[in-house]
Amino acid sequence: MTTIGEIGEDALIALFAPRLPETDAEILGPGDDAAVVAVDGHLVVSSDVLVEGRHFRREWSTGADVGWRAAMQNLADIDAMGAVPTSLQITLCAPSDLDVDWVLDFADGLREACEPHGVGVVGGDLSGADQIVVSVTVLGETHGTEVVTRADAHPGMVVAVSAPLGAAAAGFALLDAGVDAVPEASQLFKRPRPIVGAGLEAALRGAAAMMDISDGLLRDAGRIARASEVGIALDSAAVPVHPAATSAAAALGVDALRFALTGGEDHALLAVFPSVSSVPPGWEVIGEATDAFAGVRVDGQVPDAVGWDHFSR
Amino acid sequence: MTTIGEIGEDALIALFAPRLPETDAEILGPGDDAAVVAVDGHLVVSSDVLVEGRHFRREWSTGADVGWRAAMQNLADIDAMGAVPTSLQITLCAPSDLDVDWVLDFADGLREACEPHGVGVVGGDLSGADQIVVSVTVLGETHGTEVVTRADAHPGMVVAVSAPLGAAAAGFALLDAGVDAVPEASQLFKRPRPIVGAGLEAALRGAAAMMDISDGLLRDAGRIARASEVGIALDSAAVPVHPAATSAAAALGVDALRFALTGGEDHALLAVFPSVSSVPPGWEVIGEATDAFAGVRVDGQVPDAVGWDHFSR
Repeated sequence: MTTIGEIGEDALIALFAPRLPETDAEILGPGDDAAVVAVDGHLVVSSDVLVEGRHFRREWSTGADVGWRAAMQNLADIDAMGAVPTSLQITLCAPSDLDVDWVLDFADGLREACEPHGVGVVGGDLSGADQIVVSVTVLGETHGTEVVTRADAHPGMVVAVSAPLGAAAAGFALLDAGVDAVPEASQLFKRPRPIVGAGLEAALRGAAAMMDISDGLLRDAGRIARASEVGIALDSAAVPVHPAATSAAAALGVDALRFALTGGEDHALLAVFPSVSSVPPGWEVIGEATDAFAGVRVDGQVPDAVGWDHFSR
Repeated sequence: MTTIGEIGEDALIALFAPRLPETDAEILGPGDDAAVVAVDGHLVVSSDVLVEGRHFRREWSTGADVGWRAAMQNLADIDAMGAVPTSLQITLCAPSDLDVDWVLDFADGLREACEPHGVGVVGGDLSGADQIVVSVTVLGETHGTEVVTRADAHPGMVVAVSAPLGAAAAGFALLDAGVDAVPEASQLFKRPRPIVGAGLEAALRGAAAMMDISDGLLRDAGRIARASEVGIALDSAAVPVHPAATSAAAALGVDALRFALTGGEDHALLAVFPSVSSVPPGWEVIGEATDAFAGVRVDGQVPDAVGWDHFSR
């Protein structure tokens, strides 16, 4: 093993940079004070951070898993606006005794996640730190539609999700319990697989409000409710539970619906549509927007557990 | 004292967000999955990270100092392209026992640095971590000129710097030695004051290659030399040494020129101009580009110490 402290920053960059994905939007890439990127339409930008020991553990996730997840959760944020991602800025902080191979593996994971979508890494920064911290800023552009925010849901509209929920949370629970019963769930925690492009399709079909579910359906639905000043009434029986979450829940002796309602990090989309007829194929209608209450009700009740807090857990 | 773990993420954001600077370029600001920013010309983007214990220490720098520096080093990167910064994405990782006031002070520092330039914070992310890690991505745009890279210096051109050097490195040395002799130098380490806009002026006057000096004049000049495949011959007697660096060097009994040659983080600009007549007023000519050697010589000699390495120090 060779550590990044042994080879130093310049040598690490020389190994790392050629493995990164590229984008046609890049006018000037890594290696200067800044990168230059072509933007068509409006610029859409978002950032997410992954911290070792909080968002991932090195004993569970490879460098490629972390690179994949860092990319994918950012692509999902742009998709959730109904926009199209083009490029990433990556800052990687890491302890000097980290294996160089971890960093190269991280680049491979970024590339595997980004290349199918034509997204490239155009720049970033490297630094030493006591733990691995990956910060990603994703740049995207609108493709002929307005962005879809969280603030335009209206009473009477229908609430839908783009995919079955709970697999990532179930995978985390399995890994945390040391139970190797449902590899698909663990894998979907390490490498979430949102359908990038589902958000643009929803925007084209007239989605009024949309977001990606990163902190759990209930907590994130509450964000749309508050931003739009509507109530959101969910029917728990209609919430699609991922089969891997159901299997994991059986193995752990817990309730699968809880994974689907409060588990984050599947990065499926939650959106509010004017009517059932505008909901794209493959999505599931799970409730409706109401004017009664700027919050979320499940089967008519205010739920008690609404996701998690990034500082207190 | 109230810690960020005690008040939680949502309450922290509610306190933090109103203190952030705003920009006219913002179409949709913080609070959704992504922000939307107007871009005129090409998008210019750069990222830098500040890690507690490596780039700053809490016993030396206030939250406002860290916010200031995080903003300013990123504004300097856009300026170094001859472009104009418009907005920032900020990710802040912090331990749960951090005082809320530190975070609010950090926002104030961001605002103090950004507001005079019309730059706003349009989005970001917060997470827990074992140490404070601030990652900033800056977005900017070209204003009618091509970006100025590091790669277009040619033999016979003149090399110049935008401001006297060494104050930040001298300030670090004073703080590190516990010598409170030259407050101006310590202050310029904590709050570097590059002239944002000097890069656009240089671009308009025809600068062929440019960068901001963040890792020391010699190391950064070497980067222009390698990118442009030229030699850079510097005259040490012509290098402008900041008066605060001279005073600090006297107090510490060391050589002030060393601060100016190898100290980073003043974020002054280093540029290569076609001729002396195109060098803007206030800049100092310090050498020339040659075709002899893709590296740096000082007074005809290859220097032995060329800045620092981010992982090995």
